[in-house]
Amino acid sequence: MKKYLIGIDIGGTSIKIGLFNLEGILLEKWAIPSNKTENGNHILTEIAQAIEKKYNLEEVNGIGFGVPGPVQNNKVIHCVNLGWKEVDVTSEFSKHLKKAYSLRIKVANDANLAAAGERFQGIAKGYDNVCMFTLGTGIGSGIIINGSIVEGYNGFAGELGHMVIDSTNQILCNCGKQGCLETVASATGIVSLAQIHLANSLEDSLLRFVKKLSAKKVIDFAKMGDILANRIADESMDYLAYAMALITYVIDPGIFVIGGGVSNAGDFLIQKIEQHYYKYVKPFILHTTFKIATLGNDAGIYGAAYMVKE
Amino acid sequence: MKKYLIGIDIGGTSIKIGLFNLEGILLEKWAIPSNKTENGNHILTEIAQAIEKKYNLEEVNGIGFGVPGPVQNNKVIHCVNLGWKEVDVTSEFSKHLKKAYSLRIKVANDANLAAAGERFQGIAKGYDNVCMFTLGTGIGSGIIINGSIVEGYNGFAGELGHMVIDSTNQILCNCGKQGCLETVASATGIVSLAQIHLANSLEDSLLRFVKKLSAKKVIDFAKMGDILANRIADESMDYLAYAMALITYVIDPGIFVIGGGVSNAGDFLIQKIEQHYYKYVKPFILHTTFKIATLGNDAGIYGAAYMVKE
Repeated sequence: MKKYLIGIDIGGTSIKIGLFNLEGILLEKWAIPSNKTENGNHILTEIAQAIEKKYNLEEVNGIGFGVPGPVQNNKVIHCVNLGWKEVDVTSEFSKHLKKAYSLRIKVANDANLAAAGERFQGIAKGYDNVCMFTLGTGIGSGIIINGSIVEGYNGFAGELGHMVIDSTNQILCNCGKQGCLETVASATGIVSLAQIHLANSLEDSLLRFVKKLSAKKVIDFAKMGDILANRIADESMDYLAYAMALITYVIDPGIFVIGGGVSNAGDFLIQKIEQHYYKYVKPFILHTTFKIATLGNDAGIYGAAYMVKE
Repeated sequence: MKKYLIGIDIGGTSIKIGLFNLEGILLEKWAIPSNKTENGNHILTEIAQAIEKKYNLEEVNGIGFGVPGPVQNNKVIHCVNLGWKEVDVTSEFSKHLKKAYSLRIKVANDANLAAAGERFQGIAKGYDNVCMFTLGTGIGSGIIINGSIVEGYNGFAGELGHMVIDSTNQILCNCGKQGCLETVASATGIVSLAQIHLANSLEDSLLRFVKKLSAKKVIDFAKMGDILANRIADESMDYLAYAMALITYVIDPGIFVIGGGVSNAGDFLIQKIEQHYYKYVKPFILHTTFKIATLGNDAGIYGAAYMVKE
């Protein structure tokens, strides 16, 4: 009798494991360290041992895996952070189990799964189409259409952080291009914009008295009424809103979900995004919802469980 | 016994009707005029009469309709060209039939159906994800993901012509915005770019001896080696390629199909698009195919038939 789903989020440092019932209620979560020795060759073995020891897999409907790299047709293309090249997770993982269970085993990109998780049990519940941004050191993003994750032909769909949208600041991205969304709308991007603004003006600002700039400080000071800090936060969210408008012309998702560290700014952020977004989609009358993610770091395990639900 | 599919493309001037077998082979096509009197109230009645007279609808699996306006969940939101406001095509059309047949009746936007048509029996056959541009007076476009048309939450997905991507020329679009893709990559857009280039330089060009500029003349002269004409065609396709790169970061469709009058330029166009596209997606290694559409004006009826296939 199948009673459970297991969602596993494989990160560069730890592997999060969640046990869910079939309705998607998280019953238990725990973690094991990511063993990256020998090109991450032990990761799937150790996960298999850990969960087989703890659960009766006869009762499990499926196990979903999230990985920090591109995935296509249930195969990992590569995961630099884990040392993985091409990995067929379903067959590799099955080999390391003691017996052959009747199990659905699926794998997807972790940022895509965060979007799926928010759609499953988070703020995007009930939406068939979802676009999610995780604004942290970089930008993670995922797209759900008709309830399914969009991977794309090259496993490259939802790489929204690399949309080139800023021709003014021309900040160099880790990818080698200039002006990627990530260079102006991630936490790192907000700091870069702050540095540019501080260098280009003599305007008073609390930011000038800060030892180490951070996105949090820019947003906190902006909320407190610091004019320069507010202009920086505003410019950053203007770029994000412009990208969201472009995405709307492509897939019109109906809801944009914002997660990651920067999203702690809450309504302050949402208001700025909305204001700029409607400027960019004018004159078209569109109903689009902007929400802060609610599952935090658990979005990945929720999404992984969602994948193997049916 | 179900043997046939019917695909109907309702345009502002004529209504194209195609009879297909279940494999999608076009058996017969014909047209009736679009009666736009009384806010297009007679259109569905006249289609019902015409096809019921000609075919035994007991043998038809389904009837698909394409309309020149946004559609959501099988309901037309509006079609300015036909005089329609909200129309529930399935129930309206069924009312006008003499009896209740067991028929699938579906409706979608015509540009979306062109993409579906090319995927069904045209150049995009075998691709699960497709992005199609129809470059004519304006830009029509449609997106298929996992074999299904993407309509979007507001019926607004695939409005790619209104992606704002040109901040240099700032040409005014019919939508009221400046710099939409349509202002620089449609046939009209190519003419606008030509006018700007001719006004801003004294450079020799065959285009200076033309009475009435057209996209065709720009492309023909470019092919003949006219340097200014070539620069204009190149700039136009550079904008299109930039939009395609942005779209790739969203859905990574794997194939872009180009139809419409401008696509008669064939390989000349494709080469320019490819060259600029790979510049924009660098350093990512992506396999993307660029093809000229093959179904021409019949793409809509193919797509409409495809919708009601299963």
